[in-house]
Amino acid sequence: MIRGVYCASVTPVKADLSPDLDALAAHARALIADGCDGVALLGTTGEANSFSLAERRTVLEAAVQAVGADRLMPGTGVNALPETIELTRHALSLGVSRVVMLPPSYYKGVSDEGLFRAYAQVIETLADDRLRVVLYHIPQVSGVAISHDLIERLVTAFPQTVVGIKDSAGKIENMQAMIARFPGFSVLAGADPLLLPLMGMGGAGCITATSNLVAESLATVYRHHAAPEKVAEAQARINAFRDLSNSYVQIPAIKAMVAFRHGQALFARTRPPLVGLNDAELADLKLRLGAIGATVKDLAA
Amino acid sequence: MIRGVYCASVTPVKADLSPDLDALAAHARALIADGCDGVALLGTTGEANSFSLAERRTVLEAAVQAVGADRLMPGTGVNALPETIELTRHALSLGVSRVVMLPPSYYKGVSDEGLFRAYAQVIETLADDRLRVVLYHIPQVSGVAISHDLIERLVTAFPQTVVGIKDSAGKIENMQAMIARFPGFSVLAGADPLLLPLMGMGGAGCITATSNLVAESLATVYRHHAAPEKVAEAQARINAFRDLSNSYVQIPAIKAMVAFRHGQALFARTRPPLVGLNDAELADLKLRLGAIGATVKDLAA
Repeated sequence: MIRGVYCASVTPVKADLSPDLDALAAHARALIADGCDGVALLGTTGEANSFSLAERRTVLEAAVQAVGADRLMPGTGVNALPETIELTRHALSLGVSRVVMLPPSYYKGVSDEGLFRAYAQVIETLADDRLRVVLYHIPQVSGVAISHDLIERLVTAFPQTVVGIKDSAGKIENMQAMIARFPGFSVLAGADPLLLPLMGMGGAGCITATSNLVAESLATVYRHHAAPEKVAEAQARINAFRDLSNSYVQIPAIKAMVAFRHGQALFARTRPPLVGLNDAELADLKLRLGAIGATVKDLAA
Repeated sequence: MIRGVYCASVTPVKADLSPDLDALAAHARALIADGCDGVALLGTTGEANSFSLAERRTVLEAAVQAVGADRLMPGTGVNALPETIELTRHALSLGVSRVVMLPPSYYKGVSDEGLFRAYAQVIETLADDRLRVVLYHIPQVSGVAISHDLIERLVTAFPQTVVGIKDSAGKIENMQAMIARFPGFSVLAGADPLLLPLMGMGGAGCITATSNLVAESLATVYRHHAAPEKVAEAQARINAFRDLSNSYVQIPAIKAMVAFRHGQALFARTRPPLVGLNDAELADLKLRLGAIGATVKDLAA
């Protein structure tokens, strides 16, 4: 099983909006030092779909150099299956065997049969025993849900390969039902407040954006989930950071908070169609970060 | 202005699901012979997002060879702006200056500011006076609407370049409002029944899926829209084909109807996540096509 606290890492960009690989590497190392079990880069928070395939490859290569292939779980699912295959094959070529795979998500209302064929085509074309696929259920963004019947078909057809799901829909009942129906399947929460209840139900861990900022608190909750008195403070800290980011547009806010964490303005940049926080919002955020006890560094250019 | 009847062409695929360029070229020639002013290939009906960038380039090159660059209006908008730039530059390099450009559509609820920056980045990076961009409003699929305020900003900033919109949302009121607010801007309907009322309001034409089958009827409606007695029969024929395709999942049904048109089973294939009609559905469709007066050819393998 894939267990632990994984960070849905941001992807820093330079002034020309190309990936800043040095900053990415430094951030990935910081996340591991914070206590993350791994870095789930190139997901929704990582603006993966805003980067070209070529850029995505350079980002993954820089991360492998920084923290090692075993620590990584990149997103490789895009709309065109030949490109999902290409990105996944590239990850495997670097020794990265675990990937989070978004279904093709341009068409909405597609059938489980169509999604099964999509995942099957990728897995069968790659035909690599090392591959471990974490499905990605984030219907509020992708518009395409991963149903339990689809999971059933996939784990039956590819039991060694389809090993888990990142559930970012925010409904604990859905996670509980998957844990009950699919023994040994890793259910990972995409929302920080759900890590604690999920662990109590037999969940596997989390992949969240807030872990860009407070991974050590998430690691505390993960480790001591059976002892509520040990996790209250950590959970309160996580919730404070999460609530703060969610009071803005989330991804630009997370990137700005990472910028204040490292004291580097570059981390606050986003790629269109996302829009970074403006100067007034940054000034406001800085005050509010201080108010929740964050260490806030001045932003160097 | 971009005026006329454009076909949202299907993209035929071989048994290995790669584009069948010979079949595509033959179909494109047939569409022009039917009376289409042009072929808007690689859109939603063309399963564009299911093809890799490399495949999309080969499809466009084959179409240019078949019917000439002036007849084409391909889709070039994908989620990653560097790839939208790459595809649009490739089109321009072939002499294809008119493109239908989907906004980046992975993130939902993005701001007009973010979408403006996305389109601006593409247009400013290309910096090509020949480029003519038709915006693509299909929120029920893409999840990202093109607002009138966004259009206002784009036509003000890029008056020679941003020249029209394909409106596939199916609301005539929205098209009427755009015609009133943006003089000289080409408003093209994505739904066949709206071509006639749209032309009466000063609209520019249509880009529809049904024109894979009945383009000559659409050309009749386009040409004689001011004389209702001349278009009734054509409109009834269009509606019958459209209603039939919409009684299945639309794109697989259109592809199957194109297969019966040409007598080639290959046209009925789809790429995952879409699922082609099964044998029983094909048999049923064949009967129903005959009942609405279509010429139905037996399917050769």
